[in-house]
Amino acid sequence: MLVPDSTKFPNGMKHVADHLHENDFLFGMYSSAGEYTCAGYSGSLGHEEDDAAFFAQNEVDYLKYDNCYNRGQFGSPEISFNRYRAMSEALNKTGRPIFYSLCNWGQDLTFYWGSGIANSWRISGDITADFDRPDSRCPCDGDEYDCAYAGFHCSIMNILNKAAPMGQNAGTGGWNDLDCLEVGVGNLTDDEEKAHFSMWSIVKSPMVIGADVRNLKPSSFSIYSQASVLAINQDPAGIPAVRVWKRSVPETDQYGQGEIQLWSGPLDNGDRVVALLNGGMKERPMVAYLEDIFVDSFLGSEELTSTWDVYDLWANRVDNMTASQILDGSRSANGLLYNATQTSYADGLKANDTRLFGGRVGTIEPYGLLNATVPAHGGGLFRLRRQAQN
Amino acid sequence: MLVPDSTKFPNGMKHVADHLHENDFLFGMYSSAGEYTCAGYSGSLGHEEDDAAFFAQNEVDYLKYDNCYNRGQFGSPEISFNRYRAMSEALNKTGRPIFYSLCNWGQDLTFYWGSGIANSWRISGDITADFDRPDSRCPCDGDEYDCAYAGFHCSIMNILNKAAPMGQNAGTGGWNDLDCLEVGVGNLTDDEEKAHFSMWSIVKSPMVIGADVRNLKPSSFSIYSQASVLAINQDPAGIPAVRVWKRSVPETDQYGQGEIQLWSGPLDNGDRVVALLNGGMKERPMVAYLEDIFVDSFLGSEELTSTWDVYDLWANRVDNMTASQILDGSRSANGLLYNATQTSYADGLKANDTRLFGGRVGTIEPYGLLNATVPAHGGGLFRLRRQAQN
Amino acid sequence: MLVPDSTKFPNGMKHVADHLHENDFLFGMYSSAGEYTCAGYSGSLGHEEDDAAFFAQNEVDYLKYDNCYNRGQFGSPEISFNRYRAMSEALNKTGRPIFYSLCNWGQDLTFYWGSGIANSWRISGDITADFDRPDSRCPCDGDEYDCAYAGFHCSIMNILNKAAPMGQNAGTGGWNDLDCLEVGVGNLTDDEEKAHFSMWSIVKSPMVIGADVRNLKPSSFSIYSQASVLAINQDPAGIPAVRVWKRSVPETDQYGQGEIQLWSGPLDNGDRVVALLNGGMKERPMVAYLEDIFVDSFLGSEELTSTWDVYDLWANRVDNMTASQILDGSRSANGLLYNATQTSYADGLKANDTRLFGGRVGTIEPYGLLNATVPAHGGGLFRLRRQAQN
Amino acid sequence: MLVPDSTKFPNGMKHVADHLHENDFLFGMYSSAGEYTCAGYSGSLGHEEDDAAFFAQNEVDYLKYDNCYNRGQFGSPEISFNRYRAMSEALNKTGRPIFYSLCNWGQDLTFYWGSGIANSWRISGDITADFDRPDSRCPCDGDEYDCAYAGFHCSIMNILNKAAPMGQNAGTGGWNDLDCLEVGVGNLTDDEEKAHFSMWSIVKSPMVIGADVRNLKPSSFSIYSQASVLAINQDPAGIPAVRVWKRSVPETDQYGQGEIQLWSGPLDNGDRVVALLNGGMKERPMVAYLEDIFVDSFLGSEELTSTWDVYDLWANRVDNMTASQILDGSRSANGLLYNATQTSYADGLKANDTRLFGGRVGTIEPYGLLNATVPAHGGGLFRLRRQAQN
Repeated sequence: MLVPDSTKFPNGMKHVADHLHENDFLFGMYSSAGEYTCAGYSGSLGHEEDDAAFFAQNEVDYLKYDNCYNRGQFGSPEISFNRYRAMSEALNKTGRPIFYSLCNWGQDLTFYWGSGIANSWRISGDITADFDRPDSRCPCDGDEYDCAYAGFHCSIMNILNKAAPMGQNAGTGGWNDLDCLEVGVGNLTDDEEKAHFSMWSIVKSPMVIGADVRNLKPSSFSIYSQASVLAINQDPAGIPAVRVWKRSVPETDQYGQGEIQLWSGPLDNGDRVVALLNGGMKERPMVAYLEDIFVDSFLGSEELTSTWDVYDLWANRVDNMTASQILDGSRSANGLLYNATQTSYADGLKANDTRLFGGRVGTIEPYGLLNATVPAHGGGLFRLRRQAQN
Repeated sequence: MLVPDSTKFPNGMKHVADHLHENDFLFGMYSSAGEYTCAGYSGSLGHEEDDAAFFAQNEVDYLKYDNCYNRGQFGSPEISFNRYRAMSEALNKTGRPIFYSLCNWGQDLTFYWGSGIANSWRISGDITADFDRPDSRCPCDGDEYDCAYAGFHCSIMNILNKAAPMGQNAGTGGWNDLDCLEVGVGNLTDDEEKAHFSMWSIVKSPMVIGADVRNLKPSSFSIYSQASVLAINQDPAGIPAVRVWKRSVPETDQYGQGEIQLWSGPLDNGDRVVALLNGGMKERPMVAYLEDIFVDSFLGSEELTSTWDVYDLWANRVDNMTASQILDGSRSANGLLYNATQTSYADGLKANDTRLFGGRVGTIEPYGLLNATVPAHGGGLFRLRRQAQN
Repeated sequence: MLVPDSTKFPNGMKHVADHLHENDFLFGMYSSAGEYTCAGYSGSLGHEEDDAAFFAQNEVDYLKYDNCYNRGQFGSPEISFNRYRAMSEALNKTGRPIFYSLCNWGQDLTFYWGSGIANSWRISGDITADFDRPDSRCPCDGDEYDCAYAGFHCSIMNILNKAAPMGQNAGTGGWNDLDCLEVGVGNLTDDEEKAHFSMWSIVKSPMVIGADVRNLKPSSFSIYSQASVLAINQDPAGIPAVRVWKRSVPETDQYGQGEIQLWSGPLDNGDRVVALLNGGMKERPMVAYLEDIFVDSFLGSEELTSTWDVYDLWANRVDNMTASQILDGSRSANGLLYNATQTSYADGLKANDTRLFGGRVGTIEPYGLLNATVPAHGGGLFRLRRQAQN
Repeated sequence: MLVPDSTKFPNGMKHVADHLHENDFLFGMYSSAGEYTCAGYSGSLGHEEDDAAFFAQNEVDYLKYDNCYNRGQFGSPEISFNRYRAMSEALNKTGRPIFYSLCNWGQDLTFYWGSGIANSWRISGDITADFDRPDSRCPCDGDEYDCAYAGFHCSIMNILNKAAPMGQNAGTGGWNDLDCLEVGVGNLTDDEEKAHFSMWSIVKSPMVIGADVRNLKPSSFSIYSQASVLAINQDPAGIPAVRVWKRSVPETDQYGQGEIQLWSGPLDNGDRVVALLNGGMKERPMVAYLEDIFVDSFLGSEELTSTWDVYDLWANRVDNMTASQILDGSRSANGLLYNATQTSYADGLKANDTRLFGGRVGTIEPYGLLNATVPAHGGGLFRLRRQAQN
């Protein structure tokens, strides 16, 4: 059973909770469905009820529940489900609403059964701040949806490709977690950071900041603040976008990687989100046909016979000068940045808050196409809005 | 335990059953071997006996039993078998004959053990109205007979290739279910619809109409009505055809797909069914040698030394004008269409009803070959009849 | 519990046993570790002790125990082991020595655990009389040692390749069973039949005649009678030969197959058996270096520094004329053919019976090589005997 | 329950233990988590407590615990974990510290769960003295981290590649065991032996001599004695090196193998170990960029902006003449060879014993690179030491 470290937390955990709650933060806690946590502290396996009660008493709001030292209790969906179910039921029994973030790295097809017991579930090994570098420590480097050894140091493209088929099992109340955002971590380019942020958003991954927010460069700050992209992530329909196609391109990078992809998904108000992802080493024009964007619609359908306005969701990004000023406190973000704590994205979308809709960049005719120039290791992210019909 | 929705069914389910039975329909019901159905309604896991009794009391004739929200109870044949066995035994206990249609998408090698407890079993993820388009949501896109993540939006060729080795475990009383027919759904061409219908027929899949029969185009209606093809599906021997070979062709389509196949199978009266399938993008002449058609027969065998008459099973298809008239009620189908409710296919075959045998198009000499011109994304379907020997 | 069919066996099974035993045959019986046998008769699952007692009472000597209708009781070595262990223990409990021939088609890595409970175990789906034709019904068509769906209609090369790594778990008392011999069945060429018989012999598979012995052609009879090859199979050391290498050759056959292989294994008396297998479509010279033949010996070892006499184990084969005469009764086999019932192979080898050693065809110098011209779809089989040292 | 062989050990096992301990050896014992050991002696499955007590009473210090005849008790991490846990708990219960060397050949992902119950665990089938020859008896010949059939006669490169992703689960108290060292066994070249020894060292495998030490050739003796390499293996940080990249080269050997690799890992004192491995058939210049050596460090980090001195860890190797003299007793090793029994590697490193640091061969500038000429089937092993900063 877990006990607080009286040296690190001389006033106990409740004191920490109070402090966080007074400052409008929620309180996130961590444990493992094993004998120990990955760092070697005590885990919760076998005393889930005691530990859940401890979390509730200390007003925890979010529990990340890891998978280390699980004593061989994996290898089938059933054994993994039951191990994680124990904590799920223990948390529910406390009566306190605690977001249950299951972290078994996608082992035993978590995306299949996670929604029955958790609010989110990791689908892969730990992310690293690399766009597509293969790493021996993340051995499943293809599209494997069932990886027995998740490892860590997995690249952004590695994790994204694993997520491609898994959207169908996620939705309101339970989400595929593609791991923390590496925006503002390491040497990713600005285009890589934007593409990473865009893709995590449209597959409805939890958007957890992985960077040290006390030392964020302005360009990363403006990515984290891009409300028009976050509004896709928080869209009330809660439907992950689907990868329509993936193709190899000749302009591969030093790791031999180079693929381009089209993703598309429905939004609550009838709009459509479209991402064009370029994993190649050269900027390239990319094209998305309406028939691919609406891959499940047949000829003659309303989607294909409509005219669509195209909005670039990265238009209106805060410029670096402004971001610097906000970061150093010389300028207020009020009014400039969207405040989702004040007005939910759902309400903002209903109110047609322009900050949530990007900037209009073109039109797609019936049976027409969207084209965009997409930078190397980058992506374009668009919201399509149907024109009123005559 | 399931209870009727008193808003949707104010007179209860028995009332529905009576109405259907009075109109010569059978009553099909749906539930899931899970906590919820895929649409989020209550499932039957854990209260199979109560629900089976409820089905029997309401005179249900057919149960499709799905796999959503199964709480991790999959991952080995044993655990899946036992979960589906519970409903099988519960249904049998009611005493009412109810067709048990198991739908776990082929997970855990259903085709291996399904026949012990069910009348049919799905072998793949859900079908979509595409001939061979790969889709990220149907991740097993090869010939995998053991797919841990079946998904959905699986193409016709995807499912057909999965079925190829599975015929050996099906037969009277228990069938591989390749999912609903997409004839009359979406943008399939007429050749694609015919090929799809032909192949589902010869592997003895249940032939479940997937289209809205109230809005069927004439050409799809005439496919659904093609008795000579349905007679193969309903052949008394009940032996699924076998894929003899599969080869790549250079004329691939936009998805890079293009394979041709030969399938062949025995029929109850000594005839033989042969399908030539062209997945390429161009019409092509195709050839089937008697030695391949009778792949299990050795040189000198009666099959190889006989002369065979070839019947095209798509000859005598109802033309579109006639189909339109039947559909709009301006012409009666009586006599024109085969009525299998009145006369079973078995009896019709015995009586040599010409509507069940297609049209004669040629002859195969001993050790000879069948050739046919097969359209792009299409198939030829033939019944071989041995000539009387001198 | 099994009961005799009083129509087929009006005098009971013991009567059959007596008849067989009186004619110096052993009595082989068949059942399945399932609810039914593959042909739909009763199986023994759940009443192993009763059925074993029944077999013992009826003086059965050999039980083939199949895998059909096993009610999902497979998918892990443990569940399969326990299911087959039940009959093993039941047979042992009877006190009667009964050869236990386990037939679960290699499912769940039988070769790993079979030796603890059985005398032989099948390693693949059912064999068919094809040298290397792929068949959709035998879906594991590579070197998979762990095939979830064994199927049937598996070719000779398919099964042989599966066997390659499995020799290490077989030995006296427990053998890998590559399924019946197709010698004398179908259209195999004489070279194919010889190669098939050679390979089954050197991997120490049970040599079960698959043909109808009442209608055997002379050339197949002389293969079944080739004592020098059978003496390898029955060698007292009981060590399966190992595949040293396998290479592709350009002269592939109509199925795209064409590989050549070298196999080698130790014999009880210090001799060595060597097989050169040509799966290509053209006769070709093949070479085996002593360093490959003795793949586990290092430079300077006695094996590599010796001179070896090479004996062709297919020399001295009975000619077709003689075989015909033996088959039609016009000539006695006495003296001509080796009688292993009279003199075991072990004793015959000790006595240097020349019929067991083939014909000398050459010599290999220290660090030298064996070369042979091997026919298309054929093999050469040799016994190396070390020359006495000066 | 195990009992001593009174013929082989007329004075019992304790007598053996005493003899060994008096000569400063530890006492290693062997058994199997099965019914029998691989050689057919009694195993310990089912009577772990009795046997552990027997080992403790006889003052055993090390137990290798094998996997033969396990009665189908494998196939999932849970079943394997529990089988090996039984002996772990039994050993602990005795109170005697006994090194528990788990040997299930990596089956069921041992590297994942081994650290909870054992001090080391094998990760592959048995090694053989071949650098990279594929062998049918070791069927998993790729980078499979999850091999259902480990087999034996696995080459050095085969095992090394399997180990690549597994370092993350090993550390002080529990190690990946790549099997015995083949240095001094068979026909390996000196370069192969050095590369083999280097790689086993840096992944922190137990360094178990596989040769007969009574008949060691001088060059192998000097490899086993190379303290600067052993000091990497025994580094107090205990962190296995990571494979940074692996690439194919055109100069493949007779088995078609030819890959080059870069490995890198941190050391306790801030130094870095780097291995350049050349699996090709030709000597080749190889290059390692600092950015690859410190693959987890970002631009601007202290690692990339430092200057590093490069030490060749194979410099100062004992020459063959000296090794011969030590082996034949004509020269004392005192002072010449590092005596780790007297002074631990940790202490020697702290004391800057020059024998542990190799010889300085160059410098790497900030953002610079290490280059080395690496022999065919060989490797370079370097310790990087950061230059004091101005």
